[in-house]
Amino acid sequence: MSADYFAPFDTIRFEGPESTNDLAYRWYDKDRVVMGKRMEEHLRFAVCFWHTFCWPGSDVFGAGTFNRPWHAGPNDAARATAKREAALAFVEKLDVPFYCFHDVDVMADAEDAGSFRSSFAEAVDHLEELQGKHGRQLLWGTANLFSHPRYMAGAATNPDPEVYAWAAMQVRDCLEATHRLGGANYVLWGGREGYDTLLNTEIGIEQENFGRLLSLVVEHKHRIGFKGAILIEPKPHEPTKHQYDFDTQTVYAFLKRFGLENEVKVNIEANHATLSGHTFEHEIAMARALGIFGSIDANRGDPQNGWDTDQFPNSVEETTLAMIEIIRAGGFTTGGFNFDAKVRRQSIDATDLFHGHIGGIDTIARALLRAAAIIEDGQLDAFRQERYAGWRGETGKAIHAPEATLASVAELAIQANRAPEPRSGRQEWLENLVNRF
Amino acid sequence: MSADYFAPFDTIRFEGPESTNDLAYRWYDKDRVVMGKRMEEHLRFAVCFWHTFCWPGSDVFGAGTFNRPWHAGPNDAARATAKREAALAFVEKLDVPFYCFHDVDVMADAEDAGSFRSSFAEAVDHLEELQGKHGRQLLWGTANLFSHPRYMAGAATNPDPEVYAWAAMQVRDCLEATHRLGGANYVLWGGREGYDTLLNTEIGIEQENFGRLLSLVVEHKHRIGFKGAILIEPKPHEPTKHQYDFDTQTVYAFLKRFGLENEVKVNIEANHATLSGHTFEHEIAMARALGIFGSIDANRGDPQNGWDTDQFPNSVEETTLAMIEIIRAGGFTTGGFNFDAKVRRQSIDATDLFHGHIGGIDTIARALLRAAAIIEDGQLDAFRQERYAGWRGETGKAIHAPEATLASVAELAIQANRAPEPRSGRQEWLENLVNRF
Amino acid sequence: MSADYFAPFDTIRFEGPESTNDLAYRWYDKDRVVMGKRMEEHLRFAVCFWHTFCWPGSDVFGAGTFNRPWHAGPNDAARATAKREAALAFVEKLDVPFYCFHDVDVMADAEDAGSFRSSFAEAVDHLEELQGKHGRQLLWGTANLFSHPRYMAGAATNPDPEVYAWAAMQVRDCLEATHRLGGANYVLWGGREGYDTLLNTEIGIEQENFGRLLSLVVEHKHRIGFKGAILIEPKPHEPTKHQYDFDTQTVYAFLKRFGLENEVKVNIEANHATLSGHTFEHEIAMARALGIFGSIDANRGDPQNGWDTDQFPNSVEETTLAMIEIIRAGGFTTGGFNFDAKVRRQSIDATDLFHGHIGGIDTIARALLRAAAIIEDGQLDAFRQERYAGWRGETGKAIHAPEATLASVAELAIQANRAPEPRSGRQEWLENLVNRF
Amino acid sequence: MSADYFAPFDTIRFEGPESTNDLAYRWYDKDRVVMGKRMEEHLRFAVCFWHTFCWPGSDVFGAGTFNRPWHAGPNDAARATAKREAALAFVEKLDVPFYCFHDVDVMADAEDAGSFRSSFAEAVDHLEELQGKHGRQLLWGTANLFSHPRYMAGAATNPDPEVYAWAAMQVRDCLEATHRLGGANYVLWGGREGYDTLLNTEIGIEQENFGRLLSLVVEHKHRIGFKGAILIEPKPHEPTKHQYDFDTQTVYAFLKRFGLENEVKVNIEANHATLSGHTFEHEIAMARALGIFGSIDANRGDPQNGWDTDQFPNSVEETTLAMIEIIRAGGFTTGGFNFDAKVRRQSIDATDLFHGHIGGIDTIARALLRAAAIIEDGQLDAFRQERYAGWRGETGKAIHAPEATLASVAELAIQANRAPEPRSGRQEWLENLVNRF
Repeated sequence: MSADYFAPFDTIRFEGPESTNDLAYRWYDKDRVVMGKRMEEHLRFAVCFWHTFCWPGSDVFGAGTFNRPWHAGPNDAARATAKREAALAFVEKLDVPFYCFHDVDVMADAEDAGSFRSSFAEAVDHLEELQGKHGRQLLWGTANLFSHPRYMAGAATNPDPEVYAWAAMQVRDCLEATHRLGGANYVLWGGREGYDTLLNTEIGIEQENFGRLLSLVVEHKHRIGFKGAILIEPKPHEPTKHQYDFDTQTVYAFLKRFGLENEVKVNIEANHATLSGHTFEHEIAMARALGIFGSIDANRGDPQNGWDTDQFPNSVEETTLAMIEIIRAGGFTTGGFNFDAKVRRQSIDATDLFHGHIGGIDTIARALLRAAAIIEDGQLDAFRQERYAGWRGETGKAIHAPEATLASVAELAIQANRAPEPRSGRQEWLENLVNRF
Repeated sequence: MSADYFAPFDTIRFEGPESTNDLAYRWYDKDRVVMGKRMEEHLRFAVCFWHTFCWPGSDVFGAGTFNRPWHAGPNDAARATAKREAALAFVEKLDVPFYCFHDVDVMADAEDAGSFRSSFAEAVDHLEELQGKHGRQLLWGTANLFSHPRYMAGAATNPDPEVYAWAAMQVRDCLEATHRLGGANYVLWGGREGYDTLLNTEIGIEQENFGRLLSLVVEHKHRIGFKGAILIEPKPHEPTKHQYDFDTQTVYAFLKRFGLENEVKVNIEANHATLSGHTFEHEIAMARALGIFGSIDANRGDPQNGWDTDQFPNSVEETTLAMIEIIRAGGFTTGGFNFDAKVRRQSIDATDLFHGHIGGIDTIARALLRAAAIIEDGQLDAFRQERYAGWRGETGKAIHAPEATLASVAELAIQANRAPEPRSGRQEWLENLVNRF
Repeated sequence: MSADYFAPFDTIRFEGPESTNDLAYRWYDKDRVVMGKRMEEHLRFAVCFWHTFCWPGSDVFGAGTFNRPWHAGPNDAARATAKREAALAFVEKLDVPFYCFHDVDVMADAEDAGSFRSSFAEAVDHLEELQGKHGRQLLWGTANLFSHPRYMAGAATNPDPEVYAWAAMQVRDCLEATHRLGGANYVLWGGREGYDTLLNTEIGIEQENFGRLLSLVVEHKHRIGFKGAILIEPKPHEPTKHQYDFDTQTVYAFLKRFGLENEVKVNIEANHATLSGHTFEHEIAMARALGIFGSIDANRGDPQNGWDTDQFPNSVEETTLAMIEIIRAGGFTTGGFNFDAKVRRQSIDATDLFHGHIGGIDTIARALLRAAAIIEDGQLDAFRQERYAGWRGETGKAIHAPEATLASVAELAIQANRAPEPRSGRQEWLENLVNRF
Repeated sequence: MSADYFAPFDTIRFEGPESTNDLAYRWYDKDRVVMGKRMEEHLRFAVCFWHTFCWPGSDVFGAGTFNRPWHAGPNDAARATAKREAALAFVEKLDVPFYCFHDVDVMADAEDAGSFRSSFAEAVDHLEELQGKHGRQLLWGTANLFSHPRYMAGAATNPDPEVYAWAAMQVRDCLEATHRLGGANYVLWGGREGYDTLLNTEIGIEQENFGRLLSLVVEHKHRIGFKGAILIEPKPHEPTKHQYDFDTQTVYAFLKRFGLENEVKVNIEANHATLSGHTFEHEIAMARALGIFGSIDANRGDPQNGWDTDQFPNSVEETTLAMIEIIRAGGFTTGGFNFDAKVRRQSIDATDLFHGHIGGIDTIARALLRAAAIIEDGQLDAFRQERYAGWRGETGKAIHAPEATLASVAELAIQANRAPEPRSGRQEWLENLVNRF
């Protein structure tokens, strides 16, 4: 029944840019080799459970609009089973390798700790079976520590240690499940780790507790032999007024403070980047510079709307700039492109789920081709190298010399006593150059 | 002539809330003791050179509107001298203890290194004399590393090491001048330390160079025996698209990375806070939590305008929230409230300069009284303490125990196997409580 | 049972600024006469059904946190009855005169047209009885044309005329019910009148249809003899990407286009104002200038969050500026202050509902006192009058003369041939003046 | 000398997408026929004086960085002459048909009315000669009513009628000059028509005066026989806190109020659109729906920066969406694409001026080709038509019938008594469709 939902659709295949088939890839050719790697290995696409299989199409101002068959089962357990089957079937139809989940996405509801754990364990058993059946893999798992009312004041940053312990329970089980399912990463998104008002908040206590949980997670990961990366996903606001994991540099500050900068990386989401006042590519470039680039949540925001709209990426231009930074960062190791994106509330048909993902996948695939062409062309990087050439010259070396002091550097200017030569930054030319590809 | 500009004005005195004199303080009573300290010592007000004495009232869309007599001198040297005299006379008229300057604010223009240094040296001599004459002190000095065309691509982050050396020269001289003038702090605002486009920028190189300069400055400070604090002023955007010192946590990340977190603090500006997506009080609270709270640039932005409007603070409500955090941080040590604020372009008269500063000073003074009353009342802090009381109980201690693991914490939840008790966050009650004072 | 929820609370009474009773008014003294009118008549407070009695404390990222007894009844009809009883009991406890509702807020769910109408009719009967029992009145009614999935693409702007007819049915019934219940106004908020993407939208058709519905509503109002005002509530975004009723001037353009500017007014919401790039007071001032000021939705946004946070007003300073404009507009005739505000998701107790409303009411009452004092003082208005005095002089009259032409006005400048005298705008002095009260 | 500045550059020619010549058009092929019109006629490109020839590369935080030879002449008159020569020479080198100017851009400074007028008159004589020499035309002229200190409180909305008269003088002369030079339009941008604070502002008086000036301008246009369009350029903020011409709908409200909606159109700027909370294409679509679409200022903003960055357009994707709306509006009649864009402050070379314009021109030309292909393909418009098909059916006709009432429309729903059929909005499919071209 639920599985039948996607039965009318064939597996999505590459047909090339000239195809007029709405249900084909025009740019994503998984076996095409780009810069020495197959596209599938470069991009490591994943479909998420929450937006695509759990969300009913509701928003703050209205009820769900989607009539997914797996939402209509006779009881919660049956609905959860149907949802898992539908999800993995869909991922196979898209012919992308990965999926992602929160614990509560894949399981039947349960209130007490014992039932919660057993319900989740059953779900994991089923997922393992479905992974085999459909030939799909897990990009990452994560525990949902924000939807249940118990988390209204945070999980690791909750004033109540009982809530903290619940969170630890979920994280342990989900990390172990991720390990068992062969997940490539484990993600922590601090959904309500932040505050609504400073008036009732002790930032100091909350951040110490948050840091402690992260340390325990890292320690547990090593204990159980999980080889995947631990990832934190930055977000500046929403649902709380202020989220502690504001952006990549804030996360880095946090990691440094707790000595975890070599243990934890970031999962960067495009829409979170723009909500924090940065471009998508900035966040990737900064993560690269700080050595903490991990994975990507591929979606886009709406520049006119001040909340997380989680739309499928459709700008090749913007994604190309992000892709250049990903390539510079060496590409993904354990990470990938997870579609943390949802079809619009009016896009109520099964076919819309395909259009959303196909559009996003093709946008990113095309951006990869453009970015690779730009990098292989070399002019962009050559200009950048030339721009900083002075640092390889005499003055640059004198400044970088270990024995240099403020006074010795100041003396360089006094001795030279001339105006530095102004050089154009060539922004317009560089923008034109990028547009050429 | 220039000095005469303020001659019609008497020294501004405290006359109490009922006064209808526009040129009197209604709340700032410098000798009134609040929480054990005189108001003057609490607030440590400073007037800035740049907005109040250098800026002619121009903006991007129009020419200067102010006809200050010190802008009309026969030559640049005469204008600089008149400006310094006017400035210190004004600070005395306001009866606040401090002023602040950029090197180029106080001196005659000069293009080559030698003339630049001697012009600045003359200015410093004169300032020293004026400090004595008017009985005023220097809160902080700073080098302007952003206005001259040579800095169009940054100072410490410039691709050209010659520019870097110029910056080092200015910083050394200005730090030494600040030391000689008895300045309480030395500030670095990275005006153009950032980028306009990632296409021409190597973040990695730029940040390494920036970190290096900061290390050299710290080392030089100790070498010359300067006891004041070195302060970085965060700002997210403007003039560049992205400024490296985005906000307090970004600065902390930077300091941690270069091992400078115990050597450098932040100078927080209210308008920069809001432009970076934070409240003013957030930035102070975060600096306190990270141990890097230094000083304040007191101004406000316009919530409808996306640039730095640098207006005088006029909200007692908002400033009270900031003041609570300052008191919690232990108040200022070397820092103070510098008015990095400018009268509006239409406020062309000498009296407007007084109204701007008087309004700002009274707003902050009144906020101090309210904040002190709230803290002395104790209900706010008592609620916060009670909210986190669980962490002093059994579960909290078990989580914090050095031997705790993710598994041991998870087991706490499994053993308890009950829903944590939901407790109201009481935001509305807390807001009402604050409004009571 | 539901009614018992508020039994522990006494009716809220005025106790004056010195009271330390959290459940008393400190500024709202309903019988106090301000500028010739009782406070209760000035402010005309209303409590809304939706946020306070319908919303369970859910958000996009999590489930409801409130355990209101009226949400736990055995069936939908019982729950609706209990909700109505609780609501009117609460309004009486607050001792404010009005309440507001959407049709679906007060009734049991129903899918087909017949049951929908009869369910609503029963609810209206009950409300009429409760109004009498509790001595409360209806400030305004409105039809919810956005929550049901049928409205996902709009109501009056839906591409499907069947949906439009449904909307007309709801509006007719709700307008007639409002009339019968003695409502002072009828409101239209175009919750989904807008678009998510221009790609599938014909603005021309949608706006024509929207204008037509409004015309039909106005005609029907006169037909049934409803004397209250018809009000449109502007909002720029959310839930749709772009809402047609963007702000007051956009609504005015719309009204003018369909010849309705003398028939329809605006219901201005503070948070919608700020989301559209304006201050709250701007929207009121503009509505006054255009002759369409109607009523107020009293809430506030969060300046750091880009969505409608609908918080209770707690800034006396901001509300004072709005109140000055309301007084200038002549105060309310049929309008009032409706609390379209919700307690925070963590504020889960009955007492929090009281704190939210008491805080909002006192904030507004205090703002009224300040605004009245400022206006009675007269300096603010005198300055404004003086500033435009030139328009009452010779040059002003010559420009305003009916026979003036561009050439004749140009000649005034040529003849005078002198620089106009610059005059300070005195913004800082005016801000200080306002802070004095 | 100044003319020599561009001597090293050949006239820019179309060389096709494969060209690697940085100084050639890759998409703008002026004689290529698209949808029945030559590209040159479609796009009607214009170069502006102010950003490209007047601005020295300064910003609020720093001095000019450009060393244009025409800024270095011996006196103001010589500099103005050289600037005019350089400008028209540059426009010819770009091989685009039009230029635009403010009065003060093209003339030597002058303080009194007589000298101002004669200086401008001389400039106009020279421009007429240069137009002939270089074979270029004027897209539009405009008077700068915002840069001079006299306009600090507005021009038409100034509290001082003497300033108003000055403005009228400039507008009359500039309108007549535009007429004489064969200009296709006359533009009014209300640079400081707005307010910094409501505290000192009477919106009512200011808007009445503004409306009056516009009426006088329209009357004068007809009097002198000027056949071009009068255009208002909306902008929401900056330099003032609030600008009266906030956006297209606000301008429409204003025009309707003063009965000018058939006389005046809008000149839409992309960056102003986004600052006002709209997309560029929204503003065009809205102007089309209201019948006031006139012309375009082609630039882009920076989504992370809250001020007018005035960058050259470089997004083909975004411009395509705007171009679709322009084509739907019937294309330009008198209007065109004016580059109200400036090279970055670091782009200091003559060649950067070419790169900026070439990039912008190619971006727009390519967008035209894509938009034309999308419209000629027809799927997008077919989907839209089908989406609204119901309005051509029975229910739609019944609603639109002149005799329809709210009651008769409501009865349609009651009679049908069934749930309207939900239909997908297909946003993702439409986005994919657009990306296909």
